[in-house]
Amino acid sequence: MSVDIPQTNFPRVVIIGGGFGGIQVAKKLKNKEVQVIMIDRHNYHTFQPLLYQVATGGLEPDSIAHPLRKIFKNQKNFVFRVAEALKVEAEQNVLVTNIGNIQYDYLVIATGSDSNYFGSKELESHTMPMKTIPEALDMRSMVLQNLESALLTDSLNEQEAYMNFVVIGGGPTGVETAGALAELKNHVLPHDYPELDIRRMQINLIEGGDRLLGAMSEQASAKSEKFLKQMGVSVRTKERVLGYDGNVIKLSSGKELNSKIVIWSAGVKGVTLPGINNNVIVPGNRFKVNTFNQIEGYDNIFAIGDVAAMITDDYPKGHPGVAPAAIQQGQLLAKNLVQKINDIPMEPFNYFDKGSMATVGRNRAVVDMGFVRFQGTFAWFVWMFVHLMTLVGFRNRVVVFVNWVWSYFSYDRGTRLIIRRFEREADKKLDPVEV
Amino acid sequence: MSVDIPQTNFPRVVIIGGGFGGIQVAKKLKNKEVQVIMIDRHNYHTFQPLLYQVATGGLEPDSIAHPLRKIFKNQKNFVFRVAEALKVEAEQNVLVTNIGNIQYDYLVIATGSDSNYFGSKELESHTMPMKTIPEALDMRSMVLQNLESALLTDSLNEQEAYMNFVVIGGGPTGVETAGALAELKNHVLPHDYPELDIRRMQINLIEGGDRLLGAMSEQASAKSEKFLKQMGVSVRTKERVLGYDGNVIKLSSGKELNSKIVIWSAGVKGVTLPGINNNVIVPGNRFKVNTFNQIEGYDNIFAIGDVAAMITDDYPKGHPGVAPAAIQQGQLLAKNLVQKINDIPMEPFNYFDKGSMATVGRNRAVVDMGFVRFQGTFAWFVWMFVHLMTLVGFRNRVVVFVNWVWSYFSYDRGTRLIIRRFEREADKKLDPVEV
Repeated sequence: MSVDIPQTNFPRVVIIGGGFGGIQVAKKLKNKEVQVIMIDRHNYHTFQPLLYQVATGGLEPDSIAHPLRKIFKNQKNFVFRVAEALKVEAEQNVLVTNIGNIQYDYLVIATGSDSNYFGSKELESHTMPMKTIPEALDMRSMVLQNLESALLTDSLNEQEAYMNFVVIGGGPTGVETAGALAELKNHVLPHDYPELDIRRMQINLIEGGDRLLGAMSEQASAKSEKFLKQMGVSVRTKERVLGYDGNVIKLSSGKELNSKIVIWSAGVKGVTLPGINNNVIVPGNRFKVNTFNQIEGYDNIFAIGDVAAMITDDYPKGHPGVAPAAIQQGQLLAKNLVQKINDIPMEPFNYFDKGSMATVGRNRAVVDMGFVRFQGTFAWFVWMFVHLMTLVGFRNRVVVFVNWVWSYFSYDRGTRLIIRRFEREADKKLDPVEV
Repeated sequence: MSVDIPQTNFPRVVIIGGGFGGIQVAKKLKNKEVQVIMIDRHNYHTFQPLLYQVATGGLEPDSIAHPLRKIFKNQKNFVFRVAEALKVEAEQNVLVTNIGNIQYDYLVIATGSDSNYFGSKELESHTMPMKTIPEALDMRSMVLQNLESALLTDSLNEQEAYMNFVVIGGGPTGVETAGALAELKNHVLPHDYPELDIRRMQINLIEGGDRLLGAMSEQASAKSEKFLKQMGVSVRTKERVLGYDGNVIKLSSGKELNSKIVIWSAGVKGVTLPGINNNVIVPGNRFKVNTFNQIEGYDNIFAIGDVAAMITDDYPKGHPGVAPAAIQQGQLLAKNLVQKINDIPMEPFNYFDKGSMATVGRNRAVVDMGFVRFQGTFAWFVWMFVHLMTLVGFRNRVVVFVNWVWSYFSYDRGTRLIIRRFEREADKKLDPVEV
């Protein structure tokens, strides 16, 4: 069964995914002689860099999610459907989705990435990922539920486990999450839980490499570690996670930690889909693309952003899985598609690295911009400014800004609400009582 | 097993429910010689009068929910637990909860009300209630999912059903919900869904009585009906719902409407709990209380707010189930508890009726204050002002205010996000495909 979308006289570009890359392709095709069809599992774009603030009670979903239909409300050549891509039938130029088949002339795979557990089912079922808004909301519920549970137990051991927050992975997400948890611990929770000795709450950040923020400068790594330690986070580098059963986390050093909440930010992998030749999938589960973002061996199928690996001398593993790479690839691809349709040669992609940054907490961020590196209060303001400006939609900027100003002056986090309880895998068998 | 909360030297007041009534009791007992224990299923207070705005994409939960621990963060004699009351063992002065038993000296039942389906299992499983934040979020998802589904069907009949929004019950919630849906239809959806002819979207408001807002003046009823009709809502009074199977709604006039979304706001009933003598439960499932809010036949068990029926000459069915009644009863009860403990006679309750109001849409509200009645733009500003001032917490006021100002100037609703898909009972068997 095919999806009922009237064909126009123009070639049809089908985009899978409304992330940073996908929306750029569609935007830049506005008023061009193509029909643009976008599908996404959600009806909104997620600003993933701020997901950790949703997870730690700083922001609500409406601040970082933007309805896709709203982004494109005045774009006449644009059609959107909430749908999930199931596979590509490349010979027939057909994308199979859960709402039916969609014929394409050009296919853009902008499916992004998902948490990578490196094959461990145990870690997948017991740790908490943070790649989508529902996952961030689950984590928020779990953080608060754990403190409520800590009040209910007589066992000091169990209380320790409820109050031991473990973050795995010392990349930007891990660092930012650990920092945000530390701010909750330092400023918010002691007032909320006078009965608990919140000083006993631990935040452990575990990183396999020898430093945090491995993709940034050594200066940024050192400073972020110092910031985290100042804030009370235990940073454990050169330490890998061997297993976690929902109660005890086993580390490569032999150490074991009791914890009821382990957050997984240790790796991502591309979200590929069946129907594309498996041989073009490189490590990281990304599609190998040429400098035009064409998937190797295909003429009219493209991949951009996290799911694409454009292997060059400067980037032997492909570009980093960050928003600017996806945005730049998306913008060029839109231009290239128009040129290709008009038989004009496509232009090769050149990544402009704007630098990278991470925030640890109030007045504590690290910024690398080429050889310019700085940390601390000014870096923190730069971080906030860049994130505010990158948010999609004026309303989102206003809402985030108001929330940040509020938090700055009140030292408060507004949204510590358990809207939907999260039930851990490990508790499903044990505890039939609904709390 | 009893819940581990250290006993103090003071009598213990246990409050079930952190609604309007419950929080007043606890607040007014601050610095008094009692220990206050509050339990609630949620860790937040819900400002129910604005739930419909969460359901229609105008507000996020953080604007109308306030963490209970935050409300009481400086109150030393206050203890909170997330828990559900299961029953009262009145002879032993024990409240049984899902986290264990809690001993009390005085018990305050402030459990509020829940949707009343008047015994119809069919209506309960197929219509959407709107009494809690998760329910409002489900309704928001369903409104948007229906429009997405309308795009996917070839059948005009089915499309009509997806685009026919039926609200049952013409009280304030029903009127406000129908009005908010009409504003979505008139200002937001045509831009979001250019492929659908949004003029075909119907909003039906069904009321069993002969007028809307039956508890208000006839002037308010007439004007609200006029407002709704101006906005394109079909108002059907003197019409009862006989059944709804998830697809077709049968009305007492014999008329049938195809609809995939029916919102239930036709009645509430008190949330009583076992262990209290059944004979004191009056129609509406409320505990019959004396003028001190003591449940008939009990000396140390009280009920306030929606779950209490204080039958007087002026209020032969008890006070209306509105926030001011719960608040006033809660305030007096706190005072009376202290007096009772100190062997001072308690004071009888007198309800001060501040009037009532409902909003239909932009510049359209109705207000009754005693014999002063007005409708229109000024009423709308009064409605907004009163609701802003009644919200718990300064942050919530700021967030709601910013959202309202935004909506006023942009004619937009910010949060049309399907964060968690809602699955209808009626679709569970039919449609195993996850969309």
